[in-house]
Amino acid sequence: MKNILVLNGPNLNLLGKREPHIYGSQTFEDYFEQIKFSYPNVVLHYFQSNHEGQLIDKLHEIGFLYDGIVFNPGGYTHTSVALADAVAAIKAPVIEVHISNTFAREAFRHHSYISGVARGTIVGLGLAGYQLAISFLVNE
Amino acid sequence: MKNILVLNGPNLNLLGKREPHIYGSQTFEDYFEQIKFSYPNVVLHYFQSNHEGQLIDKLHEIGFLYDGIVFNPGGYTHTSVALADAVAAIKAPVIEVHISNTFAREAFRHHSYISGVARGTIVGLGLAGYQLAISFLVNE
Amino acid sequence: MKNILVLNGPNLNLLGKREPHIYGSQTFEDYFEQIKFSYPNVVLHYFQSNHEGQLIDKLHEIGFLYDGIVFNPGGYTHTSVALADAVAAIKAPVIEVHISNTFAREAFRHHSYISGVARGTIVGLGLAGYQLAISFLVNE
Amino acid sequence: MKNILVLNGPNLNLLGKREPHIYGSQTFEDYFEQIKFSYPNVVLHYFQSNHEGQLIDKLHEIGFLYDGIVFNPGGYTHTSVALADAVAAIKAPVIEVHISNTFAREAFRHHSYISGVARGTIVGLGLAGYQLAISFLVNE
Amino acid sequence: MKNILVLNGPNLNLLGKREPHIYGSQTFEDYFEQIKFSYPNVVLHYFQSNHEGQLIDKLHEIGFLYDGIVFNPGGYTHTSVALADAVAAIKAPVIEVHISNTFAREAFRHHSYISGVARGTIVGLGLAGYQLAISFLVNE
Amino acid sequence: MKNILVLNGPNLNLLGKREPHIYGSQTFEDYFEQIKFSYPNVVLHYFQSNHEGQLIDKLHEIGFLYDGIVFNPGGYTHTSVALADAVAAIKAPVIEVHISNTFAREAFRHHSYISGVARGTIVGLGLAGYQLAISFLVNE
Amino acid sequence: MKNILVLNGPNLNLLGKREPHIYGSQTFEDYFEQIKFSYPNVVLHYFQSNHEGQLIDKLHEIGFLYDGIVFNPGGYTHTSVALADAVAAIKAPVIEVHISNTFAREAFRHHSYISGVARGTIVGLGLAGYQLAISFLVNE
Amino acid sequence: MKNILVLNGPNLNLLGKREPHIYGSQTFEDYFEQIKFSYPNVVLHYFQSNHEGQLIDKLHEIGFLYDGIVFNPGGYTHTSVALADAVAAIKAPVIEVHISNTFAREAFRHHSYISGVARGTIVGLGLAGYQLAISFLVNE
Amino acid sequence: MKNILVLNGPNLNLLGKREPHIYGSQTFEDYFEQIKFSYPNVVLHYFQSNHEGQLIDKLHEIGFLYDGIVFNPGGYTHTSVALADAVAAIKAPVIEVHISNTFAREAFRHHSYISGVARGTIVGLGLAGYQLAISFLVNE
Amino acid sequence: MKNILVLNGPNLNLLGKREPHIYGSQTFEDYFEQIKFSYPNVVLHYFQSNHEGQLIDKLHEIGFLYDGIVFNPGGYTHTSVALADAVAAIKAPVIEVHISNTFAREAFRHHSYISGVARGTIVGLGLAGYQLAISFLVNE
Amino acid sequence: MKNILVLNGPNLNLLGKREPHIYGSQTFEDYFEQIKFSYPNVVLHYFQSNHEGQLIDKLHEIGFLYDGIVFNPGGYTHTSVALADAVAAIKAPVIEVHISNTFAREAFRHHSYISGVARGTIVGLGLAGYQLAISFLVNE
Amino acid sequence: MKNILVLNGPNLNLLGKREPHIYGSQTFEDYFEQIKFSYPNVVLHYFQSNHEGQLIDKLHEIGFLYDGIVFNPGGYTHTSVALADAVAAIKAPVIEVHISNTFAREAFRHHSYISGVARGTIVGLGLAGYQLAISFLVNE
Repeated sequence: MKNILVLNGPNLNLLGKREPHIYGSQTFEDYFEQIKFSYPNVVLHYFQSNHEGQLIDKLHEIGFLYDGIVFNPGGYTHTSVALADAVAAIKAPVIEVHISNTFAREAFRHHSYISGVARGTIVGLGLAGYQLAISFLVNE
Repeated sequence: MKNILVLNGPNLNLLGKREPHIYGSQTFEDYFEQIKFSYPNVVLHYFQSNHEGQLIDKLHEIGFLYDGIVFNPGGYTHTSVALADAVAAIKAPVIEVHISNTFAREAFRHHSYISGVARGTIVGLGLAGYQLAISFLVNE
Repeated sequence: MKNILVLNGPNLNLLGKREPHIYGSQTFEDYFEQIKFSYPNVVLHYFQSNHEGQLIDKLHEIGFLYDGIVFNPGGYTHTSVALADAVAAIKAPVIEVHISNTFAREAFRHHSYISGVARGTIVGLGLAGYQLAISFLVNE
Repeated sequence: MKNILVLNGPNLNLLGKREPHIYGSQTFEDYFEQIKFSYPNVVLHYFQSNHEGQLIDKLHEIGFLYDGIVFNPGGYTHTSVALADAVAAIKAPVIEVHISNTFAREAFRHHSYISGVARGTIVGLGLAGYQLAISFLVNE
Repeated sequence: MKNILVLNGPNLNLLGKREPHIYGSQTFEDYFEQIKFSYPNVVLHYFQSNHEGQLIDKLHEIGFLYDGIVFNPGGYTHTSVALADAVAAIKAPVIEVHISNTFAREAFRHHSYISGVARGTIVGLGLAGYQLAISFLVNE
Repeated sequence: MKNILVLNGPNLNLLGKREPHIYGSQTFEDYFEQIKFSYPNVVLHYFQSNHEGQLIDKLHEIGFLYDGIVFNPGGYTHTSVALADAVAAIKAPVIEVHISNTFAREAFRHHSYISGVARGTIVGLGLAGYQLAISFLVNE
Repeated sequence: MKNILVLNGPNLNLLGKREPHIYGSQTFEDYFEQIKFSYPNVVLHYFQSNHEGQLIDKLHEIGFLYDGIVFNPGGYTHTSVALADAVAAIKAPVIEVHISNTFAREAFRHHSYISGVARGTIVGLGLAGYQLAISFLVNE
Repeated sequence: MKNILVLNGPNLNLLGKREPHIYGSQTFEDYFEQIKFSYPNVVLHYFQSNHEGQLIDKLHEIGFLYDGIVFNPGGYTHTSVALADAVAAIKAPVIEVHISNTFAREAFRHHSYISGVARGTIVGLGLAGYQLAISFLVNE
Repeated sequence: MKNILVLNGPNLNLLGKREPHIYGSQTFEDYFEQIKFSYPNVVLHYFQSNHEGQLIDKLHEIGFLYDGIVFNPGGYTHTSVALADAVAAIKAPVIEVHISNTFAREAFRHHSYISGVARGTIVGLGLAGYQLAISFLVNE
Repeated sequence: MKNILVLNGPNLNLLGKREPHIYGSQTFEDYFEQIKFSYPNVVLHYFQSNHEGQLIDKLHEIGFLYDGIVFNPGGYTHTSVALADAVAAIKAPVIEVHISNTFAREAFRHHSYISGVARGTIVGLGLAGYQLAISFLVNE
Repeated sequence: MKNILVLNGPNLNLLGKREPHIYGSQTFEDYFEQIKFSYPNVVLHYFQSNHEGQLIDKLHEIGFLYDGIVFNPGGYTHTSVALADAVAAIKAPVIEVHISNTFAREAFRHHSYISGVARGTIVGLGLAGYQLAISFLVNE
Repeated sequence: MKNILVLNGPNLNLLGKREPHIYGSQTFEDYFEQIKFSYPNVVLHYFQSNHEGQLIDKLHEIGFLYDGIVFNPGGYTHTSVALADAVAAIKAPVIEVHISNTFAREAFRHHSYISGVARGTIVGLGLAGYQLAISFLVNE
C-alpha cells in the first residue's frame, strides 16, 4: 500500500475560520476525513505546521520513505529557499497545491520557490486540488 | 450530459514528434481517444490551432454553451492578453494545463497571462494534467 | 467623400455580452449604425477580427487608400509590435481608441505599442471615443 | 447652462512661443476665443498656472460646482500625486488632454498620474483635443 | 510652554468632503479644536496649504523656533525631495502622519521621501495619529 | 478589561545589549514593567520569540480573543508572507511598531509585508512607539 | 538538390513601399528572383504571411522536410514565444535575418525570442543578409 | 552689457544655516555680493524661491531677455519635469549648478531632469561652481 | 583555549545523502570528527538545525561567549534578515561558509543577507571551506 | 584592391584550445590562411589582442584607411563603451561577428555595445561568420 | 608653481576628426597650447591614452605629487570601477570633465563611476570645461 | 613541486598607501615575502598589473602550466567579462580573493563576473585570504 503525506503549511490550520470568502468554510480536518474514504487502498497521512523548520524536518523524515507528498506551503511558498531545497533533496515526488488562485491575488504570490523543484503544481481548484494531487500520486 | 472542450494551442500538434524528452512520445490524438473511454457520460470535444485568432474564435463560439474548457495555450500563455481577455469574457470555467513544468524552464515561461483569469491551473503533471482537469470539471 | 475605417480588434465582437460593467451593454453594430447617420458625407466602414494577421492585412489593404482609421486594438494593444509596425508603415492617419480607462486597470494595460505610432489616442470615454475620433478625422 | 473649465498647467502660457515644431504657433488664448463661439450654450472658463498649488486650489474651488474640467497638466502630469489626488477628490468629471503625442516622446512622458483618476484621456490630437473633450462633456 | 505646529499638505483641506470611506467625515478644523482642549499646556498651531513652496516656507519659518512639527505631507509625501530637504535642514523634530494606511493602497504610496528624514512616522491610525504624534512631542 | 498583547519578534530579546546606538540601552522587560503601571485598567501581556512559527502560533492563539496586538516583527517584517497572512487572518487589530527609523536604514528595511495588513504602523519613535500603540488600542 | 525556404513575417510584403529610408525601395519579390539565379543547384521557396499562426503552420509543414530556413520574423521577433517554440521543435536549421540594424532602433527591438533557438542571426546587412544566410545553408 | 540671472531653488535660502558640513557656512547673499565685484561689466541678478511655480514664472519672464541663467534647482532637480520643460522652452542658455557632489549622495540625487536640457552642468565645486558658470556665460 | 562553533543551517543534516554531485558523499559528522583532530588546542562545537529560530537562539546563546563562529546558513542565506540581524548583534566574529559555488548556481543564490554583516565569506571550496574558516579564527 | 582587417578581441587567441565544445578545435590562424585563398583580390589583414586599448588603437590606425573591418570583440562586446565609441568614430564599416550563438548563452551575453554602431552583426554561424562578413564587405 | 595634469581617455585623440557635430573640429593639442598661455604660473601637463591600464598607471604616478588632475575618462566613465578606485586612492583632487552633454545622449552615458569619487564634475560646456576645471584647481 | 601564481589586479600595487582604513597598511610585497617562508615546498609566483589585457595574457601564459592561481581582480571583478572568459578557458583552478568585505560596500561591488567561473571565492578576511587560498591549492 502506498503511503502519501498531505502536508499543510502556515495558517492552513485556520481553514474554515480565516477569510472564508477566499478559502471556504470547511475545516481541513473534515475534508481530510472525507477523502480518506475515497482511497481505501492508500495510507493517507496528515501534518500541519506553522513552523518552517518543522515542515523541513517532516520532509526529511518521510521524504525517503513515502510514495508521494501533497504540499501546500502557504505563505512560505513565496519566501522559502530552505523548503525548496528540502523538496529538491528528497526522493518522494512532491505535488504543490494552492487552494485559492494565487495568480489572481497580490503580485508577491505569483512567484513560488517550490514550483520549480516540485513534480507539478495545482492552483486555484479549492480543496479539490488536494484530491487531484492524491489521484495523480496513486496512479503514477 | 456535460460538454467539455479540450483546447490546445500552438505546437501541441507536434506532440510525440517535438522534443520528446520534454513532452513525451505519445501523440495527443491517441491520448485523447483513451480518455474519452474514461468519461462515458461526458461529451469531450477537441480543437487545436496554431492561430491565436482561431483560439479566441473557438473560446467565443463555445464559451457560452459548454460546461468547461481545458486549455493549454502553449507559447501564447506568456504573451497573449487577447486570449486572457477571451477567457475572462466567457461564461464557461477554464482550467489551464501545461504538460511540462513551466516553472522549471526559462524565466519567460514563469508568467502566464491566462492563470489569473482561469479558474485554476495544473502544471507539470504530463498528459495526466488534462485528465485531472476534466475530472474537476465533471465533478463540479 | 472621405473614407474612414473603424477597426476593432479581439473580443470587441463580444461588446454588449462581455463584462458589461466595464464595456456597457450595447453591441458595437448597433452603435455603428447610429453614428453612420451623424456623418452623412463620410463613408464609414467597419471591420472586426480576433486575428492579429487579419488586422494587419486590413491595415495594409486600406492604409494607402482611405482617409483615416479609428483603431481599437483590444488586447493586442499591449503585445503587438507587428500591428504597430503596420500602423507606422501606412499612409492613413490612425487614431487609437479604448472604450474603458485602460490606465485605471491592470498595469500591463498601461503600455501601448500602438500609441507612439498613432496620430493620437482617446481613452476611457466609452463608445463616444469612436465618434470623437471620427470627428477629428473628418475635420482634419 | 453648463459650466466647463479649461485648465492648463505649466509652460502652456508659452504656447505659440515655445518649440512650435511640437506645439504649433497659435497662442492658447486665440484658440480659446475661437472655440467659445462653437459652444454658445456653454459657459467656458479658462485658467492657466505654472504653480501646482494654484492648480489644486482651482480644482477644489470649482470641482464641486462646475459640470466638467478639461485639464492639460503639462509637466505635472508625470510627477504630481497631489494633483491626481485633487482630481480624484472632486465631483466634476475631468478629461485629461495633451497636445503632442506624449507616447512618441521621452519615456518619462509615457506615465501619467492623472490618467487613472480622470474620466478619460485624449493625447496627440493638437489643440483639437480640447474641443473634443469639451464636446464630450457637453453631450454627457 | 511648548510650541507645536500641525502642518497639513495638499487636499487635506477637503477632509470630511473628500472620499469619506478613506478619510472619514470630520473636518480637520473640528478635530483640531477638540485636541487643543487635551493639551492646555501646549500652544498648538495649524497650517494647511496645497502649495509645496508654502509648506517649505512654513517649515523654514518655524523650524528653528518651535519644539516640534506634526506633518502630513499628503500627495507630496511620495514626490517631493524639496520638502524632505526642508525637513532635514531644520532643527525641530518632525513626526510624519498619514490618516489612511498608505501601505494598503497604490504602490506609489508605499514610498515616502519624508520618512527617512523625519524622527518617526505614524500611518493608518486615522485622525488619532495626529494626537499620538503630539503626545510624543509633548513628552519628549 | 481589555486584553492587549505586546508581541516582539527576533532579536528583540537582545534589547539593551545589541547595538545600543540604534536601539537604546534599556531592556524591554524593564520598559514593559513601567508601562504596565500607566494602564491600570488594561491587562497587558508580553511574548517574545525568535521563531517565526511561534509568532504565528501566538497570533492564532490570542487573535480571536484579545482586543488588540502591538507587534514588532523585527527582521521578519521584511521577509515573512506567512506572518502577514496570520495578521490578516485574525480578528484583533494589529499595530506594527518599529523602534528605529527603518526608513533611514538599509533599503531592504523599507518594505514591510505586515504594514499593508496591519491597522497602522508606528516607526522610529523608540520604545515610546509601543506606548502610543497601546494608547490607540485602549481608546479605540 | 537542397530545398531552402525563405520565410518572411509581418509587414515584409510592404518592402519597397514602407519606410524606404529604413528598408530600401526594392520589393522582396524582385530581389528573390535575382538570388534564385545565383543558386542554380538549390530549390529556393518563398512564403510570406502577416499571420503568426500561418508562419507556425509553415514551419511545421516544411521543418522536417527542407534543408534549411531563412527566417525574418518581422515584428513577431520580439513578442512570439509560439514562433520560437516552433523553430525549436523542427529539424531544419533556421537562420534569423533582419534587414535593418535592429540594435540601432527602439529598445524593444533589441530582444529576440527567436535568436536563442535559431542556429544563428544576421542583422543589419540589408537584403544581402538573406543571401549570406542562403550561402551558409548551402555550404553547410 | 550682458544680463545674467543666478536662480536658486528650494532650501538654498538656508545656506549658511543648513547642514554646514555639506553646504558650508557662508550665506549666498554674502557670496553673491563678492562675485558681483569680479564682473564689473556684467549685470548680475539674483532670485531665490522655494516655489516651483515661481521658478518657472521667473524662467519665462527673463528667459527670452537675458543672456544666460545659472540655475541651482535644489531638490526640484530630481523631480520636476515642469522646470525642465521651462528650461527647454526658453532662449537663454542655462547652466545647472550644484554646490555639493550630488553623485556622492543618495541615489535619487544622481538623476537630474534639468541636465539633459541645460547647456551644461557643474557639480560638487562648492560656491565656486556659480562663478565658473558665470565665467562661461560671460565669455561665450 | 578558544571555543569555536560550527553552525549548520537547513538541509545540511542531509549531507552525504542529498544531491551528492553538488555536495559530495561524506556526512558532516564524519568530517567534523576528522577536523577536531587537527585542532587539539581548540574546543570545536557543532550545532545543526533546520529551524531559523533555533539558529538565532544559538547565535544569541554563544555569540557573547565563544571566540568565533563558522556559519553555513544554507537556504536561509538568501532570505533571512532575522539571521543577519542576529549575526550583526553578537560579539563573536562570524565566517560564512558555503560548500558549493553558490555564484555558479541559480540567480537567487547569488545574494546573501549574511555576507555584509559577517567578517568574511568562503564559497565553493567544498568541506575544506570549514577548515579554512576555523584556521582563520584560530590564528586571529 | 580592398584592404580588410579581421580583428579579434580577448581570448580568441585560445581558439582551438579553449572550450572546444563551444568554439570548435581549429585555431584561427589556420582558418585565416584558408580564407585568404578564397579572396585573391582582397588584402586580408589579421590582428588579435587581449588589450582593449590596443583594439581601440588598431581601429583608429586603420579605420580611416581600410575598406572594412570584421570585428569579434569577444568579452569586450558586453562591457566596452570605449570600443563602441571607436567603432562609431571611424569611417570604415564594421561587421560584428560572434562564433557561438551568444543569445543562447548567459543573459549578460545578450547585450552588445558594439551592435548598435556596427553596420551589422553575424552571430552563431561558427567560423563561417567571418567569411560571410568578408563577402559582404568585398561586394559592397 | 602648481603642477596640474590634463588627462584624456579613449578616443579623445580623435578630437577634431571624430563626429565634429558632437565634439567640434579643433584638435585637443591645439586647444591645449592655447590654454597654456592663460596660466603662465602653472605647469600644465598633458597625457592621453586609449588604455585603461595606462590611465590608472598615470593616476598612480602623479596622484601623490601633482596639485590637481582634470580628467575626461571618455567611454571608461561609464564602465570602469578600476579607474574610479584609482581616483579614490590618490591624494590629488580630480575634476571630471565631459565635452558633450552626456545627459542629453544615450541612457548608458548618464551614469559615471568617476563622478562620485571626483571632487566635482563639469559636463557639456565644450572644451571650455577643461579651462574652468583648471581655474578651479589653480584658485583652490 | 607545485607552481602557484598570486595574481593581483588594478590598484593593489597601492596596498599600504591607499585607504589604509579599508586595506591595511602593509604592502603586498612585504606580505608576499612572509608567506613564501610558510610554503617551502611550493613555488610561489607574483604578478600585478593595472592592465586588464596583461592580466588576461598572464592567465593564458601560465593557465595551462601552473597548479593553481590565487586571483584578486580588484575593480575588474565587477566589470570584466573578458577576464571571466580567460578564467573559464584555462586549466588551472582559480581561487578569487578579496581583502575587504565587498558585500559590505557599494552595491556594484556585490556582483562578480569571476566568482561563477572560479573554483571558489574568499572575501573579507584581509591578507589572510591569500594564505587560505594557497593552503587550499597546496592541499588539493
